Amino acid sequence: MTDYVIGIDIGGTFTKYGIVDKDGHCLKENFISTDKYTDFDVYLENLNTEIEETISTLGNPVAIKAIGIGAPNGNYYRGTIENAPNLNWKGTIQFVEKLREYYPVIPIVLTNDANAAALGEMIYGGAKNMKNFIVITLGTGLGSGIVVDGNLVYGHDGFAGELGHMNVKHRGRDCGCGKKGCLEAYVSATGIKRTVFKIMTERVIESELRNISFEDLTSKMISEAAKKGDQIAIEAFELTGRILGVKLADAITCTSPEAIFLFGGLAKAGDLLLNPTKQYMEKNLFPVYRGKVKLLLSDLTETNAAILGASALAWKELQK
Amino acid sequence: MTDYVIGIDIGGTFTKYGIVDKDGHCLKENFISTDKYTDFDVYLENLNTEIEETISTLGNPVAIKAIGIGAPNGNYYRGTIENAPNLNWKGTIQFVEKLREYYPVIPIVLTNDANAAALGEMIYGGAKNMKNFIVITLGTGLGSGIVVDGNLVYGHDGFAGELGHMNVKHRGRDCGCGKKGCLEAYVSATGIKRTVFKIMTERVIESELRNISFEDLTSKMISEAAKKGDQIAIEAFELTGRILGVKLADAITCTSPEAIFLFGGLAKAGDLLLNPTKQYMEKNLFPVYRGKVKLLLSDLTETNAAILGASALAWKELQK
Repeated sequence: MTDYVIGIDIGGTFTKYGIVDKDGHCLKENFISTDKYTDFDVYLENLNTEIEETISTLGNPVAIKAIGIGAPNGNYYRGTIENAPNLNWKGTIQFVEKLREYYPVIPIVLTNDANAAALGEMIYGGAKNMKNFIVITLGTGLGSGIVVDGNLVYGHDGFAGELGHMNVKHRGRDCGCGKKGCLEAYVSATGIKRTVFKIMTERVIESELRNISFEDLTSKMISEAAKKGDQIAIEAFELTGRILGVKLADAITCTSPEAIFLFGGLAKAGDLLLNPTKQYMEKNLFPVYRGKVKLLLSDLTETNAAILGASALAWKELQK
Repeated sequence: MTDYVIGIDIGGTFTKYGIVDKDGHCLKENFISTDKYTDFDVYLENLNTEIEETISTLGNPVAIKAIGIGAPNGNYYRGTIENAPNLNWKGTIQFVEKLREYYPVIPIVLTNDANAAALGEMIYGGAKNMKNFIVITLGTGLGSGIVVDGNLVYGHDGFAGELGHMNVKHRGRDCGCGKKGCLEAYVSATGIKRTVFKIMTERVIESELRNISFEDLTSKMISEAAKKGDQIAIEAFELTGRILGVKLADAITCTSPEAIFLFGGLAKAGDLLLNPTKQYMEKNLFPVYRGKVKLLLSDLTETNAAILGASALAWKELQK
């Protein structure tokens, strides 16, 4: 009987899960809705029922050795989801404790989604042979997972690796966290959208993006426009990369990583984002680090990277 | 026979060393000149002769178990001092390798002075029961040592923890490293001196500091003036603390420490520096960390803290 773990990725809209072996092969994956459940206990019961059903449809019996969960505002030490702004369940959710009622024996571990992404990169992706690296996830916000000496940094309270809330600008843009001027207000799918609209107000250059509302504009549209030579879109990537590059240079002074991986929607823009980021990162880097830190795109495909990340967390726990 | 280690602290002017036990008791300490030796090999031979003499003057025979060295631009992985701007010996000095000729059997370890200070704080100082903290040394420059999960962060290349070279301002003040706008150009003994002179040029307020030349002004004079109510000195501390607070908030997003310790000359100003730093750190902190990170003065007295730090490195190595 082969050993498997369950990887669960909790997003604002869907909860995806998969049955994953040590090599990152996902035997089967599925999902349930997250946002249709206002009651957490009902959600968890249904999630469990669905997982059991998925397992029962597998041809052969499988040995489930652990469960790993990636969740917004997930806390590794406490096994909790705490005040996640994009979930229905407010306050502190005792996720691991409640899931243990269904799985009383095997290890169950939870962390935030970006930390899970970093473990996924280490166990299945481009960081396989690295001991010191950072993963930056670029979605609606900017998440990060920091690995030092082969281990994820959780810090004193379990919430380490929140580079999205480094300070870019005094009295800068509003951030969802309540502060102003956070990195993710500039560098993320929504950040670059805000930058496009800012450049539109400042420049008189024509742009196809002027026909799209703020609500309708996506980072994909911006990168497609940039690839077609749209000057406003190009400038928006330039500015985004500049801000990201400077703050990555700051983060490097803390943990001196071998590489930084970019993951998620905005990273798909490739060189449009990589080139200015690399340029400004190098320029603002303490000379001793120059030319030593690789800036790479994540090796994981986005389709099931989040499930792989969560399952990597479970495998990592079993190694302990 | 009690076990001891030798702690060596290499400064630009003096090299101090001490014979230290596990509890941080320094049996005997002494020093030789650093800057009078242009030839490194001659320096090392004399250092070794002096250490042997010091040991021979001790009443009882002692068992030396390891040697720890704190040095500017010290690299833990390679045992080297690399391009230290304030030492006579240029390029890469194979310190550990050369010292091993005198001590072929016992472990010899070297790291930079701020990392050694962090280990000193952990083994003998205020961080005794902490697993995640940062030490900031405020001298001519700003050094830092970062501890994650009970271990010093060395990073991929052994040069992690260079918070003094985080970016404060685009096209800001010249820094000794060749960049512009680094944190240590604002927050350090020389940084606050530059700030005093900048405020003098901008304001018409009277100040006793206007009678002192740039070369003669010290951070001690600035803190004494501030304590007597000198408005320019007070503003200089306010601005210094503001800049430090914002950048500490950034550093906290990386490793989520339990505490940050300030050490060195400028830290002696106490509340003059601590209060604005704390205020701006909290204000610019990702809300999840607020009220959780202690900002403290180092528990080590400056007289032999550097020797204790170097010896802590040696004891830490013996624990491995």
